This record gives sequence, structure tokens and C-alpha cells, in this order.
Amino acid sequence: MPAIEEWFEFLRFASISADSKSKGEIEACAAWVARRLKKAGLAAETHSTAGNPVVVGRSDRQPGRPTVLVYGHYDVQPPDPVELWTHPPFEPHLDNGIVTARGAADNKGQIFAHLLGAEAAIRSGEGLPCNLIFVIEGEEEVGSPNLAPFLRQHRADLACDVVLVSDSSMAGPGCPTLTYGLRGIAAMEIELTGPARDLHSGFFGGAVMNPLTAMCRLLATMHDAEMHVAIGGFYDGVRPIQDWEREAWSKLPQGDAGLQAISGAPALVPAPGFTAIEMVSGQPTAEINGLYGGYQGEGSKTVIPSRAVAKLSFRLVAGQTPEDVLAKVERHFHAHLPLGVTLKVTQGHGGAPYFTDPHSRFGKAAIEALRSVFDGREPYLVREGGTIPVVADFKNILGADTLLLGLALPGCNMHSPNETFPLAHLDLGARLHLEVLRRIAAT
Amino acid sequence: MPAIEEWFEFLRFASISADSKSKGEIEACAAWVARRLKKAGLAAETHSTAGNPVVVGRSDRQPGRPTVLVYGHYDVQPPDPVELWTHPPFEPHLDNGIVTARGAADNKGQIFAHLLGAEAAIRSGEGLPCNLIFVIEGEEEVGSPNLAPFLRQHRADLACDVVLVSDSSMAGPGCPTLTYGLRGIAAMEIELTGPARDLHSGFFGGAVMNPLTAMCRLLATMHDAEMHVAIGGFYDGVRPIQDWEREAWSKLPQGDAGLQAISGAPALVPAPGFTAIEMVSGQPTAEINGLYGGYQGEGSKTVIPSRAVAKLSFRLVAGQTPEDVLAKVERHFHAHLPLGVTLKVTQGHGGAPYFTDPHSRFGKAAIEALRSVFDGREPYLVREGGTIPVVADFKNILGADTLLLGLALPGCNMHSPNETFPLAHLDLGARLHLEVLRRIAAT
Repeated sequence: MPAIEEWFEFLRFASISADSKSKGEIEACAAWVARRLKKAGLAAETHSTAGNPVVVGRSDRQPGRPTVLVYGHYDVQPPDPVELWTHPPFEPHLDNGIVTARGAADNKGQIFAHLLGAEAAIRSGEGLPCNLIFVIEGEEEVGSPNLAPFLRQHRADLACDVVLVSDSSMAGPGCPTLTYGLRGIAAMEIELTGPARDLHSGFFGGAVMNPLTAMCRLLATMHDAEMHVAIGGFYDGVRPIQDWEREAWSKLPQGDAGLQAISGAPALVPAPGFTAIEMVSGQPTAEINGLYGGYQGEGSKTVIPSRAVAKLSFRLVAGQTPEDVLAKVERHFHAHLPLGVTLKVTQGHGGAPYFTDPHSRFGKAAIEALRSVFDGREPYLVREGGTIPVVADFKNILGADTLLLGLALPGCNMHSPNETFPLAHLDLGARLHLEVLRRIAAT
Repeated sequence: MPAIEEWFEFLRFASISADSKSKGEIEACAAWVARRLKKAGLAAETHSTAGNPVVVGRSDRQPGRPTVLVYGHYDVQPPDPVELWTHPPFEPHLDNGIVTARGAADNKGQIFAHLLGAEAAIRSGEGLPCNLIFVIEGEEEVGSPNLAPFLRQHRADLACDVVLVSDSSMAGPGCPTLTYGLRGIAAMEIELTGPARDLHSGFFGGAVMNPLTAMCRLLATMHDAEMHVAIGGFYDGVRPIQDWEREAWSKLPQGDAGLQAISGAPALVPAPGFTAIEMVSGQPTAEINGLYGGYQGEGSKTVIPSRAVAKLSFRLVAGQTPEDVLAKVERHFHAHLPLGVTLKVTQGHGGAPYFTDPHSRFGKAAIEALRSVFDGREPYLVREGGTIPVVADFKNILGADTLLLGLALPGCNMHSPNETFPLAHLDLGARLHLEVLRRIAAT
């Protein structure tokens, strides 16, 4: 079966970890991954966890060679709003070299490219330059709650010299990119309850606090007039952006104008003193990911709703921890809570930010491999605004640094409708995989 | 068929004017009303409009007698959230003398009581003391957009001396109540659009304005720290609450404590200098009736949504007009619009506030009728926080004042789940109907 057809099989699983109704698809997808690792010539194990299974693949152990752990995930973001997809999200569609499907970039395309690279070395008889361990999990999109326990439990079996992850973007088409930092994340849901039930806004309006009004007033306190986060102590310990970073980022092919074009926003709103790229790369955020309350249907309904709910998340940078930020946010909300409503806080998943030196031994190996595969072009050094929560776990539990070699393109719509991945990047990723292994083996 | 069974037939129509899918139920309900008017001995006509039909019933014309127009509506509010109803909203349920159903109080119970009163006088041979015109429309819950044109078109046929409406509440069980004022209403929907589609909050967070954040910041400007409405010019022309009104309202059996108990809110939040009753009776409001944007499902989804929508309404008091208030609100939103989003405003329905002198000729007739039917108890004089938009139209188009004689109880859950009406108030309303007609005929 050609690689593209196998990849499309992978993409057809609606392996949505946020949706408990997708359990069957998750299990089937994990089984598919294990079968595919075996077919590539690796030993495959499927480990059940308190949540979704982790699939592990291993090459035959060659003593004296470094061990590289390749991490990826087979779960995907929910596809909604489904009506905005030009093709059904779980029916992959190829057009002009671009594949559209939920998970195409994040992460089924990128992890499959690595698998193809390893398989090519095994099948060709060249053999793998390093010992290889694939760890492919199913809960990345919900914060990998069961991966750290898994890593702790299997620490000896997963011992490695360095971790390889492709779950991020290149700086642009044809631009070799090493990501040396990631933002962390901390999620929270808050619910404000006022009246015991929805009330007639005529009979009660002016006397009771409207929970939606209270929610707007409360969430409006999260930022100051310049859109700095206004939660007490939020910026404590935040590592300032260094001059060499500002310089490296200023060379990125996609500047603020490119970021705006991809976003489709009428204007960008970086805080004073920062470019938009600097905001995304090196500053923390407070975002409302979802908010609802009251009448949602056609026309109007003159109610004062009983409750309002907001789903929040905070992107963190080096120097912040999810636990500390969530505690400060919760304290802030209690301190600023309007009269007439009660607050319920549910803390969600967290992931630590990551930052490593791109000029370390393995960092240099990655930079050389990128230069080689991209015909001598100088790699871009970036910090990415997204979160891969487990990267901090690899450092803390396995003691290994992570090389982030994104294969997706900017504007690939990860987490958005019409997610894409270039078909050619399967081969590009496979070649990069092997070249990185060769350079690591040579260090 | 006993009156209760006929009333239950009336209540079973899901005649939801806000929901275009209810068109069939609306038409069937209007036809039922026309049939029932005929059965009572009135001539009935069903008039189609640009929206839902208006049903008119007329008694045989007796020259020299005053003409009274009885107004009501057969449409109802949407029943959602349906899961909070203890019984299905359109399957009326009788328990301990209380009927639970959507529309039981608002307005199918109250208008049916008047119809029973007229029928009793006709059937008994006593005859009607006044000429009677019933006008029962099907768009009250969406602001009666087609009733004013209908009144204008049929001004001659609908000429009357006074209008009788029971679409409000009594001050308490067994409390005769004349409502001499109503708040008006002005509705508006606003939509903020930022990015062209939902974005990954990691890749774009900090660079683009989140439309939900912008919505919260914008709507938080609607009130000041003391919860006065902070929209420029909003209070222009508002008639101050008079001392005699404060005194009359202070005697109401349901004070602020009762209002809070019915609402189930943890605290009431009147603006400084006002009781909660005064806020509801005599002060205007700015309310968020519904708000949505971003991820609404289970778990979390780390998106920056493309748009956020809010459904707003403003309750108005004497001295304000819907047109003027909506223009000021729209101006306020444009002036306070955060950077990075675009604003779309859709103006909704409006209804003028109403205020009349309870000591006028017909007002006195109503007070005497109330005293008589309630065994000599002194009627309460109230201004109600709800809106009956057509009352101002009756004044402007037909030149007639309106007597508001509410038959519902406080806490009857109009517009909320588990709406109720006491079965005994069908008979009470029927007797009050006849007594008012007698007193009017005697003026």
C-alpha cells in the first residue's frame, strides 16, 4: 500500500481526545499505530493507562549507539465548527499537493514522516544510526495527563540521550527551523451563578446581578488598558526576551504582516514595546477559549440567565509554572468577584513551558542536519507559541533535552477548520529524521 | 367541555413566536382562539399580517354603551432550558390547584379568564354592560412588530374608550392590583469579529485580539462601578420616582426580601439610593440576555474564536424611547470598541414605556372593581418592570388608556421554566372582567 493511502487510513480515525464519545476511535487508532510500527520493522507495545493507550515502538538494540526517543501523538483536536470545513474533517482530501484533514499536521502527518524515515533505513539495509524508541500517545490535545506517570513508570525502558519531536511549524515553506522554546499552558473553567433559574428580565432586571454581566466585568479585569495581563503576580519570574532572540526573530520570513495575513484579523494588538512575533514567542497570555450563558437561539429571549460559563487558558513562558499561575488567577477572580453571584473554579490541564540552548551538542547536530537536508540554507531559531506539555516531562523525568523539528507550514490551521499538511513533507520529514539520527550518532 | 379542559387545549399549542419552526403551531393556535371566541357568542375574525395572525372577537354592538377593548396574546416564550421543567412545557400539569405549562400565566391563562367572563354574561342572559372587542395577537413575545400597523389599518373598527389588559402580576396572592406603569424595551444583537477563523491560541495568542475578550471588555463598559448604566445620555429624560410612588411601593406585600427569595439570587444589587423594588419598577436597565463564542463542548479547546455574539436588551422607563436608547447604545459601542475586532450591530424590537394616572376616570372604575371583587381590600398601585409594548400603541393609535389588571402571581415563572397560574384565577379573572365592565358602564 502506498504511503499516502496508509496515511489517509491514519487520518480517518476521529481520535478526538477531548470527546469521551470518541473512545472507540481512539482505541482503533492506537491499534493501527501499533500495527504500522511492526510493519516498519519495530517491536511494538500498546500500554493502557488511566486514559488513552500509549503505543511504544523499538528498534533492535545496538550497543554503543546513542538512543533517540521520537515522540508524537495520534489524538486530534475536535473538528468544530464543522460547518466551516471545505471537506469533511475525517475524510482526507488531496488537492495540489496539500492534504486537508483534522490531524494532518497536528500530529499524524509529522509523526508518520518519522516512521517512514525509520522504516526506510531498516528496509534499505542501511540500518538505523541510533537506537530508536517511538512513544506515540493519545492525550496530547487534552494536556497529556497520563504521560508523565507513564514515563516515570517506564523510566528505565525509555532511557534515552535525546528526544526528537515534530509537532510544530517551520518558519516558512522551505525554511529549516529549530524550535528551542515552547510556551506552557494552564487551563481553567469558571462558572458564575446568580439567580436560581433564568429570570424574566422585566420583573427582576436592575435588582439582581446578571451572571453574564458579572462574567464580562470579571473577565475584563484580566487585562489592563494596554492588554498586559493584569492578574497580580502573573509576570513574576518571566524570562525577558534576550537581544539575540529579538534579532533572530526579526529575520523570520513571516513577520508581523505575515502573521496578520494568516490570522485574517483586522489588526494585530501586541502590547507596547513588543512586536506581534515577540508576543507570541516570548510573552504569556490570558485567553477566553469559550464563553456561554443565556439564550443562544434564534431571535431574542428577555431573560436574566441563571449562570454563565467561561473556558480559559493561559499560555506560559519560561519562569512560570501552571500551578502558580492557576493559583494566582483563582485568587484574582475571588478578589474581583462582582456582588450577587457565586464563583466555581475548575482547574484544568497544565503544561510547563520549555526553553533550551540551541547551541548545545544535540542542538548543533540538529542544525547541521537541517542545513544538509535544506541544501545549505541556514536554519531559523524560534520559540513557538504553542505548547507540547510533555517536553518538560522528558527533561524532568528522563533527563533528556528535546529537539523540536517542525514539519508543518505556518497557516496550516492546526486546531482550526481545514487543517493541512503538504504531501511532500512526508518525504522531507523522513529524510530529516535519518539525517538527524546520523548527525547525532556522529557527535 | 369544562373550562379547564378547554384551557389545557389552548396551553398545548407550542405557539413560540421567536421560533420560525413553530409556524404551524402558531396558525393552529390562532384558529383555536377564533373558534373559542365564536363559541362564547362573539363574532370572530382572523386577520393575517406580515407575521402571525391577529384574532379579533366582537360582541353585538349596543349603541350608547362604552366600548372596551380587551387585549391578549396567544404566543409564548421559548421553553428552554427545557431540561429544567418538572413536566413537559406544553403538557399542562395540575397539582394542588396550580397549573404548570409554558404560557399558563403569560398570557393564555389571563386572556382565557376574560373570555370566560364575557361568555358568562352573554350565556346568563344578563348581557354585556359594554361593547366588547377582543384583540388577541401572536407576536407579543417578539415585540409585536405587526400589531401597530394592524391597529392603524383598523383604527375605525377598533375605536374604543379604554383598553383592558391582564398580562402582568398581582402584588401577591389575594392582593388586588392596578398597574399604572410599565417599562419599555429595546433589543439589540452585537457581533464582534476578529480573526477570519478560529485560531490556535498558542500560535496567535498575544498577537490578535480575542473577540470574547473584546466582548467582555466592551460589555463591561455598560455599567459603572455602582452598576448605574454608563452609556452616554442613557438617563436623559428619565422621570424621577415620586415620593407618593415610593410610599405606595413600600407597602407592597412582596418587598425586597420577597423579590430575592423568588429570584434565588445570593444577593440583590440595587444601585445606591434605591430599593430593589424601586429599581425594577422605576429604573431602566442594560442586560445581556445571551452571549456565546468559542468552544462550548466538553473539556477544553485552546482556540481564539473568530467571533463572539451577545444578545442585549434595555428596559426603559417613562421619558425614554427605544429609538433614542438604541442609537445611544450603538454610539457607545463604537466609541468603546477594542482594537482588533469589527462590530456589527443588529437593532431588534422596541416597545415604549407606559405611564398613566391611576386616579383618572377609568382608573377609578378599575380600583372600585378590584375593591369589590377582593371583598373591600384596598388595591395596590404598582409600576411593573416588564413590557407590554402595545400599551403605548393603544394610546398613540387608538387614543385609549389601558387598565392593567394582572391576574398572575409573583413567582409564576413567566419566561422561566415551570411557569404557573392558579386554576382558581380563571374564575377570579372572569368575575373581575365583568365587574370592571359594570363600573366602566356606570362612569
